[in-house]
Amino acid sequence: MNDTQFIEVKKNILDHNDRIADAFRAERTKDRTFLMDIMGSPGAGKTSLLLALIAALRREGSPEIGVIEADLESDVDALKIKAAGIPSVELNTKGVCHVEMGMMKQAYSAFAGRKFDYLFLENIGNLVCPADFDTGCHRRVMLLSVPEGWDKVCKYPPMFGIVDALIVTKCDYLPLNPDFDMQALCDHARVLNPRLQIFVTSARTGEGIEEAAAWIRSQREEVLASQTK
Amino acid sequence: MNDTQFIEVKKNILDHNDRIADAFRAERTKDRTFLMDIMGSPGAGKTSLLLALIAALRREGSPEIGVIEADLESDVDALKIKAAGIPSVELNTKGVCHVEMGMMKQAYSAFAGRKFDYLFLENIGNLVCPADFDTGCHRRVMLLSVPEGWDKVCKYPPMFGIVDALIVTKCDYLPLNPDFDMQALCDHARVLNPRLQIFVTSARTGEGIEEAAAWIRSQREEVLASQTK
Repeated sequence: MNDTQFIEVKKNILDHNDRIADAFRAERTKDRTFLMDIMGSPGAGKTSLLLALIAALRREGSPEIGVIEADLESDVDALKIKAAGIPSVELNTKGVCHVEMGMMKQAYSAFAGRKFDYLFLENIGNLVCPADFDTGCHRRVMLLSVPEGWDKVCKYPPMFGIVDALIVTKCDYLPLNPDFDMQALCDHARVLNPRLQIFVTSARTGEGIEEAAAWIRSQREEVLASQTK
Repeated sequence: MNDTQFIEVKKNILDHNDRIADAFRAERTKDRTFLMDIMGSPGAGKTSLLLALIAALRREGSPEIGVIEADLESDVDALKIKAAGIPSVELNTKGVCHVEMGMMKQAYSAFAGRKFDYLFLENIGNLVCPADFDTGCHRRVMLLSVPEGWDKVCKYPPMFGIVDALIVTKCDYLPLNPDFDMQALCDHARVLNPRLQIFVTSARTGEGIEEAAAWIRSQREEVLASQTK
């Protein structure tokens, strides 16, 4: 196998994707739509957290909120989002391990011009590949659930390095996981990413949800303010 | 982006990888080394299960057992394996999301001709990409931990389709996860893969470990028997 050629192909694909992502992001800023990409392993609790965050965001004003629900196959998560009365589009990648801009633009166009204050992308459950692909969002967050173990920060560093926030989920499992070293997780994560925001949450008990929602509101304000400058 | 060209590159890489995998597998069969690939999400409990399985395998005879420990970065898992007195090689993929034959052969050669009865590959924590790449093992198993949720069988079907066994891990978490529908998991998994073996285990309590180890022994016998035909 010619490794160099393979790497060149990958670089070209990523560069091309980045350019489309920048243009898409700028358009959404003009529309006053704040886009957030939610990443994490399978089972990290992305859909449950998203439902809790949307409920919290809706407690202040009446923001228009939509969701792009990416899955390899199936509509399990999309149905959960729809059941909560949230406008959503199902992005079925047919086995592809990440979301790229071709998919993202197609999914977005399925909203047929509907305007949102917040639009969330629930990315494919994968702690590795999505980190490579800019999805045209304003902010990217990753989830790490307590049952996965704190040491994932040592083993899967790329994603920790590129996100704006780390949301620790399922913190109601902490009593069962005495080995989960929150301090070590935070210390290691901040070495990889000194500007990282960290939230400790449980969608089940509601812990940390208001704080994470307040940060999301502040990030939208920041993006809109950058536009008016 | 020229999708067709990208897909062609991927197909060529996979075909090339498959041919090397077949040759590697045949060589290991001749050596009487049974190779098993262990896959699953980050935090599914691969290292803990592996340690429990090796302890169980060692309770019968004195098999020679080695481990190839794949990680994106870091030596967290490799150190755990070494601490248990198990010969191991660290395969550091430097951010690559799967193990392919170039890496596998390089890792194997680091054992410098040492012979094993059982050689395990702990693959990268990723429920998506490793399913595409034959690692030259005789059998492939995937782990799904109870905290990840049973519905992952609907959302990440490719890996369920290609493995020989599904090992459900962390079953001591079942009382905390009343929504985990084991019957639905088994039913869906067997639709994807009618020949699938399923084991329900907990490395913490030891539940199901002997059964899974007995199956691994039987699979080694089967591979060796096919050689002598």
